[in-house]
Amino acid sequence: MATEIERKFLVTGEGWRAAALAPGLRLRQGYLPNGGAPTAPVVRVRLAGEDGFLTIKGPGLLSRAEFEYPIPAADAEAMLATLCTPPVLEKSRTRVAHGGLVWEVDVFAGHLAGLVMAEVELASADQPFARPDWVGAEVTDDARYQNAVLSRALAPPHG
Amino acid sequence: MATEIERKFLVTGEGWRAAALAPGLRLRQGYLPNGGAPTAPVVRVRLAGEDGFLTIKGPGLLSRAEFEYPIPAADAEAMLATLCTPPVLEKSRTRVAHGGLVWEVDVFAGHLAGLVMAEVELASADQPFARPDWVGAEVTDDARYQNAVLSRALAPPHG
Repeated sequence: MATEIERKFLVTGEGWRAAALAPGLRLRQGYLPNGGAPTAPVVRVRLAGEDGFLTIKGPGLLSRAEFEYPIPAADAEAMLATLCTPPVLEKSRTRVAHGGLVWEVDVFAGHLAGLVMAEVELASADQPFARPDWVGAEVTDDARYQNAVLSRALAPPHG
Repeated sequence: MATEIERKFLVTGEGWRAAALAPGLRLRQGYLPNGGAPTAPVVRVRLAGEDGFLTIKGPGLLSRAEFEYPIPAADAEAMLATLCTPPVLEKSRTRVAHGGLVWEVDVFAGHLAGLVMAEVELASADQPFARPDWVGAEVTDDARYQNAVLSRALAPPHG
């Protein structure tokens, strides 16, 4: 079990592309139905490139418990196709160096095309960090930008 | 991924004890909240003796998709304590030979003490099998006897 502390931002510029550490990784992910209560844990099924993962996240926005396990890609495919609430969320994730930290920039596709978000994982909730000039509003505390909520959105919440 | 075909019965006698293949294994298990819809997959967290498991089961009674993964016992303990809907379901499972098949007899404890059930896994839904004289009513199609439902019961449904 890990506790994940992340801050999330909308991306407003393209400057991150020059600082990319590697080409983007294609992610496809979905969520098992959980009734939608804000306190309900989230179960995420993810294909990251050719690798499958199953992740259970406790409630919370800035800080939350996380349990993640590798699973066969075929299992992830089957769960995305038959058990997860459609649609499958698709994005390309690029790791970007900034101010001594690694940021992850997510360019969404499919029903969320046009949305670009960045997140940085911190060791503590009050850890100082350098804010890149290619990010705009912080959305850490905005539940609409949780991926489990985005996956159910009919249109980009920023559009 | 496996497809599980199981038939379930209430146990009315003690004859199974003489045919036990091994001492009973203590199981402690709980379920992540899923909103309770009959079509929602179930996520089960289980401690079987010292071993942890995470299992996702698709909808269905007699036959259902099942994905099961070993996880660290400490993770299972943490999820049972903090993420699963209380109470934790406790039972002792004994493997029993009968008519060339292996049955599993579950003696429930805790809030379900007094309930004893048996199930047999079949290769197909219409596979013939010998019905032991220590089982009573079949409850395969009775959703009240699904473990995910039993775990939320306040009193034994047979009492």
